[in-house]
Amino acid sequence: MSDPLDRPARPTPGRVWLVGAGPGAADLITLRGARILGEAEVVLYDALVTPDILALCPAATLISVGKRSGQRSMAQTLINQQLVDCAFRYDRVARLKGGDPMLFGRADEEMRALEEANIPFEIVPGITTAFAAAASIKQPLTKRGIARNVAFFTSTTGRGEPHDVALPGCDTLIQYMGGQEAIDTARRLIEHGKSPNTPVVAIENVSRDDERIIRLSLAEMVHGLPTGEGPVLVMIGEALRVRSDT
Amino acid sequence: MSDPLDRPARPTPGRVWLVGAGPGAADLITLRGARILGEAEVVLYDALVTPDILALCPAATLISVGKRSGQRSMAQTLINQQLVDCAFRYDRVARLKGGDPMLFGRADEEMRALEEANIPFEIVPGITTAFAAAASIKQPLTKRGIARNVAFFTSTTGRGEPHDVALPGCDTLIQYMGGQEAIDTARRLIEHGKSPNTPVVAIENVSRDDERIIRLSLAEMVHGLPTGEGPVLVMIGEALRVRSDT
Repeated sequence: MSDPLDRPARPTPGRVWLVGAGPGAADLITLRGARILGEAEVVLYDALVTPDILALCPAATLISVGKRSGQRSMAQTLINQQLVDCAFRYDRVARLKGGDPMLFGRADEEMRALEEANIPFEIVPGITTAFAAAASIKQPLTKRGIARNVAFFTSTTGRGEPHDVALPGCDTLIQYMGGQEAIDTARRLIEHGKSPNTPVVAIENVSRDDERIIRLSLAEMVHGLPTGEGPVLVMIGEALRVRSDT
Repeated sequence: MSDPLDRPARPTPGRVWLVGAGPGAADLITLRGARILGEAEVVLYDALVTPDILALCPAATLISVGKRSGQRSMAQTLINQQLVDCAFRYDRVARLKGGDPMLFGRADEEMRALEEANIPFEIVPGITTAFAAAASIKQPLTKRGIARNVAFFTSTTGRGEPHDVALPGCDTLIQYMGGQEAIDTARRLIEHGKSPNTPVVAIENVSRDDERIIRLSLAEMVHGLPTGEGPVLVMIGEALRVRSDT
């Protein structure tokens, strides 16, 4: 394939859409997102975006920018620059991100780069993994009298360095990219008084054909999660107790 | 219109889908959600579901179950019963909920009722209002070095009674149905040490034509929000500071 940037820059930029791909299943993107992908001339996509989603933009030039937790990936500044370069060469540029662009998506850096270059842009929200996971297991994140609030957090900075921050004190806790930090998360929550009996659901490859659901207790998670290479979402709290047990 | 339940019950139930309608704009539902609505014979919908979304199911019999925060609405047990009654009279029943069904959606009660009646069901996730709001204002909910986690909470039980619970301690706080509790929320957060200078964005009618964005500080929110009759989402935290000020 020829280099999509091997054409002259124009004085006036095109328009950029930061699009949430959703969790992976091709029909869990929004109608708006699917339309934008169908009309895009070039699509810059993360490693977490599935081939099923990329099939929605058969006419576009695809550029992998390979961001993925725990793996070597293109530096964010290079992605920003590539996005700006594309916008000065194409009318319609989509930046496709797994889940929702505004949650753990580094969207701030990309929006700043676009604004500094005076490139018009819009955001298209996507289904974040936690909601697709709750749908898969048919368990709500909030539950009357049991779970009145929910926190989304991640224990890494996106470069594999652990945050030195307290875990949120909400009833339901959702840890993104939670597979590698599972032991640490379980230890810290038990240390801070969370019951070892608290239910945990870890889901790998949410919404995809190879989705895998693991149920255990917080005490059991101290020994780690038997997950594979896919992205893992860890959901913790009484709302995750199976209904037949409540 | 004739009563959609005025037909004999059958021994074998149909299938039910609990579908997230998303925030209101017709093209912010998922492809899967739109397909289910297009195929449904009957759709039970909440008051927060917009006419634009209902236009996606022109062939279905529509039943309003009128749930809306702060207003008198059908009791949850009656909704559960109506859902079960529909499932024994139609092959394809959609239960359409604003936002995502698994967040503040009383889905637990409806899923229990379906399971007790041995009715097969599936959940289709939807864009929750917070992500659509972040997309509208082009500000992320998490931000490197500024906001590492986010909490979704509501101060009411869904029947107008305030929770007697602490406010979550996350970097970004998102209060659903937050308009009426704004004064109380601001006071309590300041009492607990949150800076009065913390940015707040209150958004009414997110993603709709009459969307209204109000920017203020936590100190200013102590005097209340100048919002109207529509649903209000309140977003609090340094991630909401406008980029030109950071």
